[in-house]
Amino acid sequence: MRLEDIAITVVGLGVVGGSFAEGLKKAGAGKVYGIDNNLETLKKAKKSGIVDEAFENGKIPLPKTDLVIISLYPELLETFILENNEYFKENSIITDVTGIKGKVLREVKPKLRKDIDFILGHPMAGREKRGIDYADSGVFKNANYILIKADNKEKNINLMKEIIEKLGFKNINFLDTEEHDEIIAFTSQLTHAIAVSLINSDDNKYDTNKFIGDSYRDLTRIAKINEDLWAELFLGNKDNLLFMIEKFEKRLDVLKEAVKSEDIETLKKEFRESSRRREQIT
Amino acid sequence: MRLEDIAITVVGLGVVGGSFAEGLKKAGAGKVYGIDNNLETLKKAKKSGIVDEAFENGKIPLPKTDLVIISLYPELLETFILENNEYFKENSIITDVTGIKGKVLREVKPKLRKDIDFILGHPMAGREKRGIDYADSGVFKNANYILIKADNKEKNINLMKEIIEKLGFKNINFLDTEEHDEIIAFTSQLTHAIAVSLINSDDNKYDTNKFIGDSYRDLTRIAKINEDLWAELFLGNKDNLLFMIEKFEKRLDVLKEAVKSEDIETLKKEFRESSRRREQIT
Repeated sequence: MRLEDIAITVVGLGVVGGSFAEGLKKAGAGKVYGIDNNLETLKKAKKSGIVDEAFENGKIPLPKTDLVIISLYPELLETFILENNEYFKENSIITDVTGIKGKVLREVKPKLRKDIDFILGHPMAGREKRGIDYADSGVFKNANYILIKADNKEKNINLMKEIIEKLGFKNINFLDTEEHDEIIAFTSQLTHAIAVSLINSDDNKYDTNKFIGDSYRDLTRIAKINEDLWAELFLGNKDNLLFMIEKFEKRLDVLKEAVKSEDIETLKKEFRESSRRREQIT
Repeated sequence: MRLEDIAITVVGLGVVGGSFAEGLKKAGAGKVYGIDNNLETLKKAKKSGIVDEAFENGKIPLPKTDLVIISLYPELLETFILENNEYFKENSIITDVTGIKGKVLREVKPKLRKDIDFILGHPMAGREKRGIDYADSGVFKNANYILIKADNKEKNINLMKEIIEKLGFKNINFLDTEEHDEIIAFTSQLTHAIAVSLINSDDNKYDTNKFIGDSYRDLTRIAKINEDLWAELFLGNKDNLLFMIEKFEKRLDVLKEAVKSEDIETLKKEFRESSRRREQIT
């Protein structure tokens, strides 16, 4: 299978799904269909040309679709699969974009028809904005993509890799679900917990906006957060997230104790270490 | 006094001082002199044209300088003033750029010759990079500037305001030193403590770089930190910083407890509040 010969359906034309649709059209996918339950979104998707056809449900497009990209919240992913099991094309591929994986593998995958190849995926590119109006496949450029190691067909994995590369992603890395949920608790869920707590800890004694620089802007950017999605992600990865929050707090306490005891050498040591680590990040 | 009629000396041609020099030349300052103890830096400053003349010390330029902008670490600020008290032009103006103010007002200002008008200032624009090679007055565009309320001459304050505006800053706000050090402990020093602790809490079980998105990149950008400068800033604002760290930790504990007890309503409430607050930040 080559990208130009296949039909792809993107389910959920929000900022992430919309970016997939747009990027797939640009990359030359044979057909790109879109499914969304919002009529306004469907109209916009058709009008902007990021899909060839737009549908309210899967009945018409799914039977002729080779690859289904489901860009829905974790809970809705399960509902969509249950409602559309009869429509999926024989031996077709499904992939998702959710930020937690153990739960999807354990609770959602068993509900899918057995001939369908479910490749669990996580594109590490997002936006703090919501909705199709902010869809832009440019966010994928040089971003990381995680695929979950499972019993998928090799030819299907190869197709996924081709598509991911054509969308502009830089790295594709394979993890099992436990590894994924552990590292993502650190790089994604902990960072959101920190940003939210930082901005909420402001007691508003001052008009903070007048006294900030880029550091505060950067550290709070992701505090604008989709509450339904992130509440699901936090609770769906509970133990890992609690572990990471506690690890972070312990390290912050090292700085706190150093400030308290005016231990300048420990401060400098922490700063040198953080600088060294940050230089390695691309 | 108008900008085009006066001579300005920038002391310390690092990334901040260099940006001042460059911006002042662009804004049409009569003369811009530079002082730095690094000969390579002086050569670069002359060659790139961001100063009219460059000096290793203050002996020659200071007697003909109307405004001295001292862009040095807090400790070096004091040393520079002690060493150059005899050279400052009569009734000239001095301003600084340091990130803590109570200490400067209490410990440094009293050492300055009495005819000199010391206006304490804090441009809230910086770079994680160091050195004259990264000097770029573009970072001042739309940034915040704090001036400290003190017994300065009105005409001198007006000149400072004119210069700050011409450099591209958006807001000039007046605070006393206690207010400044309190709000800056929150918006600047706490954010750096968080970024450093986040990246240092990584146990490197994974090749983290492969599993990050923009959220981790944003939250760790300022973890690349000048250890001498920031150790001074942390310890020079000790009590305020400890207070802010503890306030932040308490709010993070709200999220932690909500995750632990699977209290989805509290999570969503925190997320809605953080989103509302972030929307107000420009």
